[in-house]
Amino acid sequence: MELAIFGYIAAFCTAVSFLPQAVKTIKTKDTNGLSLLTYLFLFFGSLSWFIYGIVLSDVPLMGTNFLTTIFTGIILFLILRGRN
Amino acid sequence: MELAIFGYIAAFCTAVSFLPQAVKTIKTKDTNGLSLLTYLFLFFGSLSWFIYGIVLSDVPLMGTNFLTTIFTGIILFLILRGRN
Repeated sequence: MELAIFGYIAAFCTAVSFLPQAVKTIKTKDTNGLSLLTYLFLFFGSLSWFIYGIVLSDVPLMGTNFLTTIFTGIILFLILRGRN
Repeated sequence: MELAIFGYIAAFCTAVSFLPQAVKTIKTKDTNGLSLLTYLFLFFGSLSWFIYGIVLSDVPLMGTNFLTTIFTGIILFLILRGRN
């Protein structure tokens, strides 16, 4: 089905979305504008989607959320370190 | 199935994740630490998931991504306005 293209675009955007933010925050160490609560939700949300992907044996769900868990985890770590 | 709890936790976290970031950025106007590329991916990714939800007639996919499209759209607008 041609409309599945929206699913592929969406999955690609989701998978790579937090890479530029992680690179930027590693380089600049500027975490003032970042919401801690947002990255707590994003990290535990991605981790839950990843686990849910394992439960369903759904490879795309596992793959995209493996990446977002890593990237949002790095950003969350930098936010928490910036507060200490 | 009890393991579906991971899906509910994940969907909840995803749906509300960008609300605290939107509120913070509206209040502080501090967009220096935010990655433009990340919010371009997040906005068009959420919009594509929303459209894909319509294609599949999947209400949870539509609902969560309706919210994230609005919230990431607000943040993207503020980042772009901060650059002008």
